[in-house]
Amino acid sequence: MPNPTAAMLVIGDEILSGRTQDANMHYLAGELTKRGITLAEVRIVGDQRDDIVEAVRALARRHDTVFTSGGIGPTHDDITADCIAAAFERHIDVRDDARRLLEEHYKNSGLDLNAARLRMARIPDGATLIDNPVSVAPGFTVENVHVMAGVPAVFQAMVASVLPGLTGGAPLLSQSLRIDRGEGDIAEPLGQLAARFPDLSIGSYPFQKNGAFGANIVIRGTDGARIDAAMAQLAEIFA
Amino acid sequence: MPNPTAAMLVIGDEILSGRTQDANMHYLAGELTKRGITLAEVRIVGDQRDDIVEAVRALARRHDTVFTSGGIGPTHDDITADCIAAAFERHIDVRDDARRLLEEHYKNSGLDLNAARLRMARIPDGATLIDNPVSVAPGFTVENVHVMAGVPAVFQAMVASVLPGLTGGAPLLSQSLRIDRGEGDIAEPLGQLAARFPDLSIGSYPFQKNGAFGANIVIRGTDGARIDAAMAQLAEIFA
Repeated sequence: MPNPTAAMLVIGDEILSGRTQDANMHYLAGELTKRGITLAEVRIVGDQRDDIVEAVRALARRHDTVFTSGGIGPTHDDITADCIAAAFERHIDVRDDARRLLEEHYKNSGLDLNAARLRMARIPDGATLIDNPVSVAPGFTVENVHVMAGVPAVFQAMVASVLPGLTGGAPLLSQSLRIDRGEGDIAEPLGQLAARFPDLSIGSYPFQKNGAFGANIVIRGTDGARIDAAMAQLAEIFA
Repeated sequence: MPNPTAAMLVIGDEILSGRTQDANMHYLAGELTKRGITLAEVRIVGDQRDDIVEAVRALARRHDTVFTSGGIGPTHDDITADCIAAAFERHIDVRDDARRLLEEHYKNSGLDLNAARLRMARIPDGATLIDNPVSVAPGFTVENVHVMAGVPAVFQAMVASVLPGLTGGAPLLSQSLRIDRGEGDIAEPLGQLAARFPDLSIGSYPFQKNGAFGANIVIRGTDGARIDAAMAQLAEIFA
């Protein structure tokens, strides 16, 4: 049985303008791989309602699980929660359980739970809250979509809350070998190796360093013994 | 008139598995922003034919320009050129102009233009070649899609070849202010400021450092005087 697939939707103008480099995708990719869930697709869209709604619908239909990051804070450009509600045609408003979390937190910290902060308690009907041990304002899950913050510390804490509840597959194992020859030299025997191990994914990732060409060959699969066998042949071919 | 929009399609299992962190998107985003072209959407897909074909078609339909990175090397997992040909229903084969480039290069370097390397001369009918001053094997343009290598040095050189030929818009200008207060405190006056400057994009990018909350406020637009005016009000509000 193939492993379950996941998609990620990164929401935010700041990534697309080149101002910020996304760090959450790389983190999520690593966590999912460990658990045998294949991150199959990532999309990055700006703070535009139609773009967010359409992307969420497309990804939720095609993958077992979707993770979103960004756009759930208190400011005017935080429109993710409303877009998710629209994507699933659910009503959204300030919800009592989320409001209580915020009330308690702001009471303890002596801050005012003003109208802006209260926006963070807007949760679509029927959604399950995702715990936020860093800054309290919760994420939420609607159907197969997990809606999480963009601030990396909060994103990572929310991923940790969500992952144990997901059905994983056989963890994806990998081994790699660096070959200091151009891909053009190694492509033919590498293709033959890949044909002998159709159950494994054999990738070639070229690099160029100080004018010399090379490639990292990565062999991935769920059966460690098969990977060992392919690695042994790889090492022998390029010894 | 709104600025033209672009999309990027990153192709490669290595990004989705968390093995490699993409650097090309961040680079392209910065270059496009300078030229007044809005990077509106990014998708990342693995080395899967159907996924690549579908993403290229969707992005080419929706945006003025599409840039792809990755999958045009000589190894068995390099399937981008064939996928682009399929997306536009064009015939693809080794093309004489691309073959001549490779022949000359490999003759000079004393390397064999073997079958694997010759795959890099597979170009869809009617495509225009994109110059590769780094490692010769060309990218290509089909309709509004520019197909480029994933190796960052080559990607950047190809972007430099392509950009002068694109119609840009008014360069997007931006100024930012760091505010050491939680977003919940600043959200309301910030929303009012955004309402007074509907022609500008005012974004709030929260951070958390050593337990303290803050936000970088970024004001973007094409009219420098308007940005100055909004920045002045912003500074006054949060003085």
